[in-house]
Amino acid sequence: MDKPQNKSTQASLALKKISYGFYIVTTKAPAEELSSRDKDYYAAGTVSWVSQISFDPPLVMVAIQKDSDLNETIQRSQSFAINIVGKAELNMLKAFSKGSDVEGEKINGYSFEEKETGSPILNDVPAFIECELNDAVTPEGDHMVFIGKVVNAKVRNEDAEPLMEWETDYHYGG
Amino acid sequence: MDKPQNKSTQASLALKKISYGFYIVTTKAPAEELSSRDKDYYAAGTVSWVSQISFDPPLVMVAIQKDSDLNETIQRSQSFAINIVGKAELNMLKAFSKGSDVEGEKINGYSFEEKETGSPILNDVPAFIECELNDAVTPEGDHMVFIGKVVNAKVRNEDAEPLMEWETDYHYGG
Repeated sequence: MDKPQNKSTQASLALKKISYGFYIVTTKAPAEELSSRDKDYYAAGTVSWVSQISFDPPLVMVAIQKDSDLNETIQRSQSFAINIVGKAELNMLKAFSKGSDVEGEKINGYSFEEKETGSPILNDVPAFIECELNDAVTPEGDHMVFIGKVVNAKVRNEDAEPLMEWETDYHYGG
Repeated sequence: MDKPQNKSTQASLALKKISYGFYIVTTKAPAEELSSRDKDYYAAGTVSWVSQISFDPPLVMVAIQKDSDLNETIQRSQSFAINIVGKAELNMLKAFSKGSDVEGEKINGYSFEEKETGSPILNDVPAFIECELNDAVTPEGDHMVFIGKVVNAKVRNEDAEPLMEWETDYHYGG
């Protein structure tokens, strides 16, 4: 009688064998897009489910939990940035695992700049990708898939190696 | 005058900092789905752009080149399998980089079995995930995004470590 549970457990274990890096996805909804707020609204979160999905034009997808501030804010801003976390930035994962808080020129304690989309670009990450929202897919599951067209990107430190899930105690899939 | 090129180059370099594993995606279109063929048709290919996109139900996405046999066959079969390549299976990448050829009980020289979806499950990989097609998204780019619901999965070797792009000379993104 325990077959269904076994099957679900096997699925979870196999899904954990997919390889991911870590990314801090950020976005900014301008005040004029927000009915109840009088200033720009920022959202950010650590995610793993990121993949390129086209070379020409360069498109990426990020899967973001449906019931989240980050999800709602990307829908408002119609843009987002993927801050690629390097091996030296392990500490950032925790800082961006629960909501986002902007104080002065810092978000969750980390300094940032705004470039083409207004999404916070964290000064400490070795590379970032800014996207305009191209499409938002709502499958039946618990995450929404945002497809972004790359409009600005930069590698600040060519030698910096991305942080891999396997090197940490964190794992998002399963 | 070279700014556009610089921008495109930076995008390509930053996209290469996204982390991926390697997967051999396989599928089988039954003969009755094919107008011009009198037997089942198999397709397989090495891909990197794979990510989970939901916990409940477990959903995954794979981005497959639009103009490809694998793409066309998944649309016919409405199902696919993700064979997760381990560190010991580096040689498989090349074998599945160009089309697919079934001889006897082998595809591209590797033995396989059929389980729930009929998609070839390679006997040498440490884990696999079988999916029924849930949705197919066609962004404006050069790949199609197939969303699959996990219907069967297994980890055969819990200790086997997935092969990471960084460990090889292959890289698909950019």
